[in-house]
Amino acid sequence: MTAKLEAFVFDVFGTVVDWRSGIAQEVTASGLIGPDAERAFEFADAWRRRYVPSFIEVNSGRRPFAKLDALHFENLLETLLEFGVDPLALPEAALTELNHAWHRLPPWPDSVRGLALLKSRFVIAPHSNGNLRLLLDMAKHGGLPWDAILGAEVVGAYKPVPQSYLRTAELLSLRPDQVCMVAAHNDDLAAARACGLRTAFVLRPHEHGPRQTTDLAPTQDWDFVVNSIAELGEIACASPG
Amino acid sequence: MTAKLEAFVFDVFGTVVDWRSGIAQEVTASGLIGPDAERAFEFADAWRRRYVPSFIEVNSGRRPFAKLDALHFENLLETLLEFGVDPLALPEAALTELNHAWHRLPPWPDSVRGLALLKSRFVIAPHSNGNLRLLLDMAKHGGLPWDAILGAEVVGAYKPVPQSYLRTAELLSLRPDQVCMVAAHNDDLAAARACGLRTAFVLRPHEHGPRQTTDLAPTQDWDFVVNSIAELGEIACASPG
Repeated sequence: MTAKLEAFVFDVFGTVVDWRSGIAQEVTASGLIGPDAERAFEFADAWRRRYVPSFIEVNSGRRPFAKLDALHFENLLETLLEFGVDPLALPEAALTELNHAWHRLPPWPDSVRGLALLKSRFVIAPHSNGNLRLLLDMAKHGGLPWDAILGAEVVGAYKPVPQSYLRTAELLSLRPDQVCMVAAHNDDLAAARACGLRTAFVLRPHEHGPRQTTDLAPTQDWDFVVNSIAELGEIACASPG
Repeated sequence: MTAKLEAFVFDVFGTVVDWRSGIAQEVTASGLIGPDAERAFEFADAWRRRYVPSFIEVNSGRRPFAKLDALHFENLLETLLEFGVDPLALPEAALTELNHAWHRLPPWPDSVRGLALLKSRFVIAPHSNGNLRLLLDMAKHGGLPWDAILGAEVVGAYKPVPQSYLRTAELLSLRPDQVCMVAAHNDDLAAARACGLRTAFVLRPHEHGPRQTTDLAPTQDWDFVVNSIAELGEIACASPG
Protein backbone atom coordinates (compact mmCIF):
# COMPACT_ATOMS: atom_id res chain seq x y z
CA MET A 1 0.00 0.00 0.00
CA THR A 2 1.25 3.46 -0.83
CA ALA A 3 1.73 5.74 2.18
CA LYS A 4 -0.49 8.78 2.39
CA LEU A 5 1.44 11.84 1.27
CA GLU A 6 1.36 14.41 4.07
CA ALA A 7 4.07 16.99 3.47
CA PHE A 8 5.91 18.83 0.72
CA VAL A 9 9.39 20.14 1.53
CA PHE A 10 11.06 22.57 -0.81
CA ASP A 11 14.41 23.45 -2.18
CA VAL A 12 14.31 27.24 -2.15
CA PHE A 13 17.13 28.89 -4.16
CA GLY A 14 16.03 28.52 -7.79
CA THR A 15 12.93 26.47 -7.00
CA VAL A 16 10.84 28.92 -4.94
CA VAL A 17 12.78 32.16 -5.45
CA ASP A 18 14.71 33.72 -8.35
CA TRP A 19 18.09 34.18 -6.70
CA ARG A 20 19.89 35.35 -9.87
CA SER A 21 17.61 38.32 -10.56
CA GLY A 22 17.33 39.20 -6.89
CA ILE A 23 21.07 39.25 -6.30
CA ALA A 24 21.85 41.06 -9.55
CA GLN A 25 19.34 43.78 -8.69
CA GLU A 26 20.78 44.37 -5.22
CA VAL A 27 24.36 44.29 -6.54
CA THR A 28 23.42 46.99 -9.04
CA ALA A 29 21.66 49.01 -6.35
CA SER A 30 24.75 48.78 -4.13
CA GLY A 31 26.73 50.75 -6.71
CA LEU A 32 29.81 48.63 -6.00
CA ILE A 33 30.42 47.38 -9.54
CA GLY A 34 28.78 50.05 -11.66
CA PRO A 35 25.48 50.17 -13.55
CA ASP A 36 26.00 47.43 -16.16
CA ALA A 37 23.17 44.90 -15.80
CA GLU A 38 25.03 42.04 -17.51
CA ARG A 39 27.97 42.50 -15.17
CA ALA A 40 25.59 42.34 -12.19
CA PHE A 41 24.29 38.96 -13.41
CA GLU A 42 27.89 37.80 -13.81
CA PHE A 43 28.53 38.89 -10.23
CA ALA A 44 25.50 36.91 -9.04
CA ASP A 45 26.72 33.85 -10.94
CA ALA A 46 30.25 34.21 -9.55
CA TRP A 47 28.96 34.58 -5.99
CA ARG A 48 26.67 31.55 -6.38
CA ARG A 49 29.47 29.47 -7.98
CA ARG A 50 31.31 29.52 -4.63
CA TYR A 51 28.29 28.10 -2.79
CA VAL A 52 28.75 24.35 -3.29
CA PRO A 53 32.53 24.30 -2.62
CA SER A 54 31.98 26.21 0.64
CA PHE A 55 29.43 23.83 2.14
CA ILE A 56 31.36 20.78 0.96
CA GLU A 57 33.96 21.89 3.52
CA VAL A 58 31.28 21.45 6.19
CA ASN A 59 29.79 18.20 4.92
CA SER A 60 33.27 16.66 4.60
CA GLY A 61 33.91 17.35 8.28
CA ARG A 62 36.89 19.59 7.50
CA ARG A 63 34.99 22.52 9.01
CA PRO A 64 32.39 22.72 11.80
CA PHE A 65 28.86 23.59 10.80
CA ALA A 66 28.55 27.25 9.80
CA LYS A 67 25.40 29.15 8.83
CA LEU A 68 24.94 29.82 5.13
CA ASP A 69 25.01 33.54 6.01
CA ALA A 70 28.63 33.08 7.13
CA LEU A 71 29.56 31.12 3.99
CA HIS A 72 27.83 33.72 1.80
CA PHE A 73 29.78 36.49 3.54
CA GLU A 74 33.15 34.84 2.93
CA ASN A 75 32.17 34.15 -0.66
CA LEU A 76 31.07 37.76 -1.12
CA LEU A 77 34.52 39.02 -0.11
CA GLU A 78 36.16 36.70 -2.66
CA THR A 79 33.70 37.68 -5.38
CA LEU A 80 34.31 41.37 -4.78
CA LEU A 81 38.06 40.79 -5.13
CA GLU A 82 37.41 38.88 -8.38
CA PHE A 83 35.51 41.92 -9.65
CA GLY A 84 38.30 44.32 -8.69
CA VAL A 85 36.65 45.71 -5.55
CA ASP A 86 38.64 45.76 -2.29
CA PRO A 87 36.19 44.65 0.41
CA LEU A 88 38.46 45.97 3.16
CA ALA A 89 37.86 49.49 1.83
CA LEU A 90 34.09 49.12 2.43
CA PRO A 91 32.15 49.61 5.66
CA GLU A 92 31.21 46.27 7.21
CA ALA A 93 27.58 47.46 7.42
CA ALA A 94 27.49 47.80 3.62
CA LEU A 95 28.87 44.29 3.17
CA THR A 96 26.37 42.84 5.64
CA GLU A 97 23.54 44.68 3.92
CA LEU A 98 24.52 43.23 0.55
CA ASN A 99 24.99 39.77 2.08
CA HIS A 100 21.40 39.98 3.32
CA ALA A 101 20.21 40.28 -0.27
CA TRP A 102 19.78 36.49 0.04
CA HIS A 103 17.16 37.16 2.75
CA ARG A 104 15.11 39.27 0.34
CA LEU A 105 15.05 37.18 -2.83
CA PRO A 106 11.88 37.51 -4.91
CA PRO A 107 9.59 34.48 -5.26
CA TRP A 108 8.90 33.21 -8.77
CA PRO A 109 5.48 34.54 -9.85
CA ASP A 110 3.67 31.22 -9.18
CA SER A 111 5.29 30.39 -5.82
CA VAL A 112 3.04 32.11 -3.29
CA ARG A 113 -0.18 30.91 -4.94
CA GLY A 114 1.13 27.36 -5.26
CA LEU A 115 2.32 27.22 -1.66
CA ALA A 116 -0.98 28.58 -0.33
CA LEU A 117 -2.85 25.91 -2.32
CA LEU A 118 -0.60 23.10 -1.03
CA LYS A 119 -0.83 24.44 2.53
CA SER A 120 -4.62 24.04 2.48
CA ARG A 121 -4.19 20.28 2.40
CA PHE A 122 -0.57 19.40 3.25
CA VAL A 123 2.25 20.47 5.53
CA ILE A 124 4.70 22.71 3.67
CA ALA A 125 8.20 23.71 4.73
CA PRO A 126 11.46 24.74 3.11
CA HIS A 127 14.17 22.08 3.15
CA SER A 128 16.90 24.40 2.04
CA ASN A 129 20.55 24.98 2.72
CA GLY A 130 19.67 28.51 3.80
CA ASN A 131 19.96 29.18 7.53
CA LEU A 132 16.82 29.58 9.57
CA ARG A 133 16.87 33.38 9.82
CA LEU A 134 17.59 33.75 6.11
CA LEU A 135 14.57 31.58 5.26
CA LEU A 136 12.41 33.29 7.88
CA ASP A 137 13.23 36.79 6.59
CA MET A 138 12.67 35.63 3.01
CA ALA A 139 9.24 34.28 3.98
CA LYS A 140 8.25 37.52 5.70
CA HIS A 141 9.56 39.56 2.77
CA GLY A 142 7.99 37.51 -0.01
CA GLY A 143 4.85 36.25 1.73
CA LEU A 144 5.82 32.56 1.66
CA PRO A 145 3.27 30.87 3.95
CA TRP A 146 5.43 28.06 5.39
CA ASP A 147 4.08 25.90 8.22
CA ALA A 148 7.60 25.61 9.67
CA ILE A 149 11.16 26.52 8.70
CA LEU A 150 13.34 23.45 8.24
CA GLY A 151 16.65 23.00 6.47
CA ALA A 152 20.39 22.68 6.89
CA GLU A 153 20.77 24.68 10.09
CA VAL A 154 18.03 22.81 11.95
CA VAL A 155 19.39 19.41 10.95
CA GLY A 156 23.07 20.42 11.19
CA ALA A 157 24.07 19.27 7.69
CA TYR A 158 23.83 20.56 4.15
CA LYS A 159 21.99 18.76 1.36
CA PRO A 160 22.62 16.32 -0.24
CA VAL A 161 23.82 14.52 2.94
CA PRO A 162 21.23 11.73 3.54
CA GLN A 163 20.68 12.62 7.21
CA SER A 164 19.39 16.04 6.15
CA TYR A 165 16.43 14.41 4.32
CA LEU A 166 15.84 11.75 6.96
CA ARG A 167 16.03 14.12 9.91
CA THR A 168 13.62 16.50 8.16
CA ALA A 169 11.02 13.71 7.84
CA GLU A 170 11.64 12.73 11.47
CA LEU A 171 11.08 16.31 12.65
CA LEU A 172 7.72 16.23 10.85
CA SER A 173 6.92 12.91 12.61
CA LEU A 174 6.56 11.30 9.18
CA ARG A 175 8.09 8.36 7.37
CA PRO A 176 10.21 9.41 4.36
CA ASP A 177 7.59 8.13 1.88
CA GLN A 178 5.00 10.47 3.39
CA VAL A 179 7.18 13.45 2.41
CA CYS A 180 7.71 14.83 -1.10
CA MET A 181 10.89 16.78 -1.90
CA VAL A 182 10.25 19.58 -4.40
CA ALA A 183 13.19 20.94 -6.40
CA ALA A 184 14.24 22.36 -9.75
CA HIS A 185 17.41 20.25 -9.50
CA ASN A 186 17.66 16.59 -10.46
CA ASP A 187 20.56 15.91 -8.07
CA ASP A 188 18.58 17.11 -5.04
CA LEU A 189 15.69 14.83 -6.02
CA ALA A 190 18.02 11.87 -6.61
CA ALA A 191 19.42 12.26 -3.09
CA ALA A 192 15.91 12.58 -1.64
CA ARG A 193 14.68 9.50 -3.52
CA ALA A 194 17.66 7.50 -2.26
CA CYS A 195 16.39 8.29 1.26
CA GLY A 196 12.87 7.11 0.41
CA LEU A 197 11.20 10.48 -0.09
CA ARG A 198 8.83 11.16 -2.96
CA THR A 199 9.91 13.68 -5.55
CA ALA A 200 8.55 16.62 -7.53
CA PHE A 201 10.57 18.28 -10.29
CA VAL A 202 9.70 21.89 -11.05
CA LEU A 203 11.07 23.12 -14.35
CA ARG A 204 12.86 26.44 -13.88
CA PRO A 205 14.58 26.86 -17.24
CA HIS A 206 15.67 30.44 -16.51
CA GLU A 207 17.13 29.98 -13.03
CA HIS A 208 20.59 30.48 -14.53
CA GLY A 209 19.47 33.02 -17.12
CA PRO A 210 18.61 32.76 -20.82
CA ARG A 211 21.49 30.40 -21.67
CA GLN A 212 20.84 27.76 -18.99
CA THR A 213 22.12 24.28 -19.88
CA THR A 214 21.34 22.29 -16.71
CA ASP A 215 18.13 20.80 -15.30
CA LEU A 216 16.15 21.53 -18.46
CA ALA A 217 14.46 18.12 -18.21
CA PRO A 218 13.88 15.40 -15.63
CA THR A 219 16.62 12.76 -15.53
CA GLN A 220 14.46 10.19 -13.70
CA ASP A 221 10.75 9.33 -13.54
CA TRP A 222 10.03 11.70 -10.66
CA ASP A 223 6.62 11.35 -8.99
CA PHE A 224 5.58 14.80 -10.21
CA VAL A 225 6.99 16.83 -13.09
CA VAL A 226 5.51 20.33 -13.33
CA ASN A 227 6.13 23.76 -14.81
CA SER A 228 5.34 25.65 -11.61
CA ILE A 229 4.55 25.26 -7.92
CA ALA A 230 1.03 26.43 -8.72
CA GLU A 231 0.66 23.47 -11.12
CA LEU A 232 1.99 21.13 -8.42
CA GLY A 233 -0.61 22.51 -6.02
CA GLU A 234 -3.43 21.95 -8.50
CA ILE A 235 -2.37 18.37 -9.25
CA ALA A 236 -1.67 17.37 -5.64
CA CYS A 237 -4.87 18.91 -4.30
CA ALA A 238 -6.96 17.24 -7.04
CA SER A 239 -5.63 13.76 -6.27
CA PRO A 240 -7.76 11.49 -4.06
CA GLY A 241 -5.04 11.24 -1.37
CA MET B 1 22.92 50.93 25.01
CA THR B 2 19.94 48.64 25.07
CA ALA B 3 19.85 46.14 22.22
CA LYS B 4 17.01 46.47 19.73
CA LEU B 5 14.33 43.91 20.52
CA GLU B 6 13.74 41.78 17.41
CA ALA B 7 11.90 38.62 18.40
CA PHE B 8 9.28 37.30 20.80
CA VAL B 9 9.39 33.59 21.61
CA PHE B 10 6.49 31.97 23.40
CA ASP B 11 5.75 29.35 25.92
CA VAL B 12 2.65 27.68 24.47
CA PHE B 13 0.81 25.39 26.92
CA GLY B 14 -1.09 27.76 29.19
CA THR B 15 0.36 30.94 27.66
CA VAL B 16 -0.95 30.76 24.08
CA VAL B 17 -3.46 27.90 24.33
CA ASP B 18 -5.91 26.69 26.99
CA TRP B 19 -4.67 23.12 27.42
CA ARG B 20 -6.96 22.30 30.35
CA SER B 21 -10.23 23.06 28.55
CA GLY B 22 -9.00 21.54 25.31
CA ILE B 23 -7.93 18.26 26.88
CA ALA B 24 -11.03 18.00 29.08
CA GLN B 25 -13.27 18.49 26.06
CA GLU B 26 -11.56 15.78 24.02
CA VAL B 27 -11.46 13.39 26.99
CA THR B 28 -15.22 13.85 27.39
CA ALA B 29 -15.77 13.38 23.65
CA SER B 30 -13.72 10.17 23.74
CA GLY B 31 -16.32 8.60 26.04
CA LEU B 32 -13.57 6.80 27.95
CA ILE B 33 -14.37 8.16 31.41
CA GLY B 34 -18.03 9.08 31.15
CA PRO B 35 -19.87 12.38 30.73
CA ASP B 36 -18.94 14.16 33.99
CA ALA B 37 -17.26 17.48 33.10
CA GLU B 38 -15.47 17.90 36.44
CA ARG B 39 -13.97 14.43 36.10
CA ALA B 40 -12.70 15.34 32.62
CA PHE B 41 -10.90 18.37 34.07
CA GLU B 42 -9.42 16.13 36.76
CA PHE B 43 -8.22 13.81 34.00
CA ALA B 44 -6.59 16.74 32.18
CA ASP B 45 -4.89 17.82 35.42
CA ALA B 46 -3.69 14.28 36.16
CA TRP B 47 -2.30 13.87 32.62
CA ARG B 48 -0.56 17.24 32.80
CA ARG B 49 0.84 16.49 36.29
CA ARG B 50 3.01 13.77 34.75
CA TYR B 51 4.54 16.18 32.24
CA VAL B 52 7.43 17.69 34.23
CA PRO B 53 8.62 14.41 35.79
CA SER B 54 8.70 12.80 32.34
CA PHE B 55 10.95 15.40 30.69
CA ILE B 56 13.18 15.64 33.76
CA GLU B 57 14.21 12.08 32.82
CA VAL B 58 15.46 13.49 29.51
CA ASN B 59 17.11 16.64 30.86
CA SER B 60 18.92 14.64 33.54
CA GLY B 61 20.50 12.45 30.87
CA ARG B 62 18.86 9.29 32.24
CA ARG B 63 16.91 8.96 29.02
CA PRO B 64 17.72 9.97 25.41
CA PHE B 65 15.72 12.83 23.92
CA ALA B 66 12.15 11.77 23.17
CA LYS B 67 9.42 13.82 21.49
CA LEU B 68 6.77 15.23 23.80
CA ASP B 69 4.23 13.17 21.81
CA ALA B 70 5.97 10.03 23.11
CA LEU B 71 6.05 11.30 26.70
CA HIS B 72 2.38 12.33 26.46
CA PHE B 73 1.48 8.85 25.20
CA GLU B 74 3.19 7.08 28.09
CA ASN B 75 1.59 9.50 30.53
CA LEU B 76 -1.82 8.92 28.93
CA LEU B 77 -1.57 5.20 29.59
CA GLU B 78 -0.74 5.83 33.25
CA THR B 79 -3.52 8.38 33.62
CA LEU B 80 -6.07 5.99 32.13
CA LEU B 81 -5.00 3.35 34.66
CA GLU B 82 -5.35 5.92 37.45
CA PHE B 83 -8.92 6.55 36.27
CA GLY B 84 -9.74 2.85 36.18
CA VAL B 85 -9.52 2.40 32.40
CA ASP B 86 -7.38 -0.42 31.01
CA PRO B 87 -5.51 1.10 28.03
CA LEU B 88 -4.61 -2.36 26.72
CA ALA B 89 -8.31 -2.99 26.09
CA LEU B 90 -8.47 0.01 23.75
CA PRO B 91 -7.52 0.18 20.06
CA GLU B 92 -4.16 1.91 19.60
CA ALA B 93 -5.75 4.25 17.06
CA ALA B 94 -8.14 5.54 19.74
CA LEU B 95 -5.25 6.17 22.12
CA THR B 96 -3.24 7.97 19.43
CA GLU B 97 -6.26 10.07 18.52
CA LEU B 98 -6.71 11.15 22.12
CA ASN B 99 -2.97 11.78 22.49
CA HIS B 100 -3.23 14.14 19.52
CA ALA B 101 -5.66 16.31 21.48
CA TRP B 102 -2.51 18.25 22.40
CA HIS B 103 -2.14 19.08 18.67
CA ARG B 104 -5.60 20.67 18.62
CA LEU B 105 -5.64 22.82 21.76
CA PRO B 106 -7.70 26.01 21.46
CA PRO B 107 -5.90 29.39 21.60
CA TRP B 108 -6.94 31.80 24.35
CA PRO B 109 -9.33 34.38 22.81
CA ASP B 110 -6.63 37.09 22.54
CA SER B 111 -3.79 34.94 21.18
CA VAL B 112 -4.29 35.07 17.41
CA ARG B 113 -4.89 38.82 17.35
CA GLY B 114 -1.90 39.49 19.61
CA LEU B 115 0.43 37.27 17.58
CA ALA B 116 -0.65 38.87 14.30
CA LEU B 117 0.06 42.31 15.75
CA LEU B 118 3.50 41.29 17.03
CA LYS B 119 4.30 39.57 13.72
CA SER B 120 3.80 42.84 11.84
CA ARG B 121 6.93 44.24 13.51
CA PHE B 122 8.85 41.39 15.16
CA VAL B 123 9.80 37.77 14.58
CA ILE B 124 7.48 35.44 16.51
CA ALA B 125 7.99 31.76 17.24
CA PRO B 126 6.97 29.23 19.85
CA HIS B 127 9.71 28.23 22.26
CA SER B 128 7.78 25.36 23.75
CA ASN B 129 8.46 21.89 25.02
CA GLY B 130 6.00 20.60 22.42
CA ASN B 131 7.54 18.69 19.53
CA LEU B 132 7.66 20.32 16.12
CA ARG B 133 4.73 18.46 14.57
CA LEU B 134 2.56 19.06 17.64
CA LEU B 135 3.21 22.82 17.43
CA LEU B 136 2.81 22.83 13.65
CA ASP B 137 -0.57 21.05 13.79
CA MET B 138 -1.69 23.34 16.61
CA ALA B 139 -0.78 26.39 14.52
CA LYS B 140 -2.70 25.09 11.48
CA HIS B 141 -5.68 24.17 13.66
CA GLY B 142 -5.85 27.38 15.66
CA GLY B 143 -4.52 29.86 13.09
CA LEU B 144 -1.38 30.79 15.04
CA PRO B 145 0.73 32.79 12.54
CA TRP B 146 4.24 31.78 13.65
CA ASP B 147 7.25 32.84 11.56
CA ALA B 148 9.01 29.57 12.49
CA ILE B 149 8.50 26.62 14.81
CA LEU B 150 11.19 26.42 17.48
CA GLY B 151 11.29 24.57 20.78
CA ALA B 152 12.56 21.54 22.61
CA GLU B 153 12.76 19.16 19.68
CA VAL B 154 14.71 21.55 17.45
CA VAL B 155 17.23 22.36 20.19
CA GLY B 156 17.31 18.81 21.63
CA ALA B 157 16.54 19.80 25.24
CA TYR B 158 13.50 20.69 27.33
CA LYS B 159 13.06 24.02 29.07
CA PRO B 160 14.33 25.20 31.53
CA VAL B 161 17.75 23.90 30.43
CA PRO B 162 19.81 27.05 29.59
CA GLN B 163 20.96 25.75 26.21
CA SER B 164 17.34 25.64 25.05
CA TYR B 165 17.03 29.44 25.42
CA LEU B 166 20.52 30.18 24.08
CA ARG B 167 20.23 27.88 21.09
CA THR B 168 16.84 29.38 20.23
CA ALA B 169 18.39 32.87 20.07
CA GLU B 170 21.29 31.49 18.03
CA LEU B 171 18.90 29.90 15.51
CA LEU B 172 17.29 33.32 15.08
CA SER B 173 20.78 34.84 14.52
CA LEU B 174 20.15 37.09 17.52
CA ARG B 175 21.87 37.85 20.79
CA PRO B 176 19.82 36.76 23.85
CA ASP B 177 18.97 40.37 24.76
CA GLN B 178 17.35 40.87 21.35
CA VAL B 179 14.85 38.11 22.18
CA CYS B 180 11.93 38.32 24.62
CA MET B 181 10.57 35.14 26.24
CA VAL B 182 6.81 35.30 26.76
CA ALA B 183 5.22 33.02 29.36
CA ALA B 184 2.48 32.73 31.94
CA HIS B 185 4.98 31.02 34.26
CA ASN B 186 7.48 32.83 36.44
CA ASP B 187 9.94 29.92 36.49
CA ASP B 188 10.20 29.88 32.68
CA LEU B 189 10.93 33.62 32.68
CA ALA B 190 13.50 33.30 35.48
CA ALA B 191 15.39 30.70 33.43
CA ALA B 192 15.19 32.88 30.31
CA ARG B 193 16.41 35.97 32.20
CA ALA B 194 19.35 34.00 33.60
CA CYS B 195 20.35 33.38 29.95
CA GLY B 196 20.11 37.09 29.11
CA LEU B 197 16.73 37.09 27.34
CA ARG B 198 14.13 39.74 27.98
CA THR B 199 10.91 38.67 29.62
CA ALA B 200 7.16 39.15 29.28
CA PHE B 201 4.73 37.77 31.85
CA VAL B 202 1.19 37.11 30.64
CA LEU B 203 -1.33 36.65 33.43
CA ARG B 204 -3.39 33.52 32.81
CA PRO B 205 -5.20 33.15 36.15
CA HIS B 206 -7.48 30.37 34.89
CA GLU B 207 -4.91 28.12 33.21
CA HIS B 208 -5.40 25.63 36.03
CA GLY B 209 -9.11 26.33 36.45
CA PRO B 210 -11.08 28.47 38.87
CA ARG B 211 -9.03 27.52 41.93
CA GLN B 212 -5.56 28.29 40.54
CA THR B 213 -2.96 29.15 43.18
CA THR B 214 0.22 29.53 41.10
CA ASP B 215 1.52 32.31 38.83
CA LEU B 216 -1.20 34.74 39.87
CA ALA B 217 1.34 37.57 40.02
CA PRO B 218 4.84 38.35 38.75
CA THR B 219 7.62 37.28 41.12
CA GLN B 220 10.26 39.54 39.52
CA ASP B 221 10.26 42.88 37.69
CA TRP B 222 9.74 41.33 34.27
CA ASP B 223 10.22 43.65 31.27
CA PHE B 224 6.54 43.38 30.36
CA VAL B 225 3.61 42.35 32.57
CA VAL B 226 0.34 42.07 30.65
CA ASN B 227 -3.12 40.55 30.86
CA SER B 228 -3.09 39.16 27.32
CA ILE B 229 -0.93 38.63 24.25
CA ALA B 230 -3.05 41.26 22.51
CA GLU B 231 -2.02 43.76 25.19
CA LEU B 232 1.62 42.76 24.75
CA GLY B 233 1.26 43.38 21.01
CA GLU B 234 -0.22 46.82 21.56
CA ILE B 235 2.51 47.87 24.00
CA ALA B 236 5.42 46.44 22.03
CA CYS B 237 4.24 47.86 18.72
CA ALA B 238 3.66 51.31 20.28
CA SER B 239 7.20 51.55 21.67
CA PRO B 240 9.80 53.46 19.65
CA GLY B 241 12.04 50.39 19.24
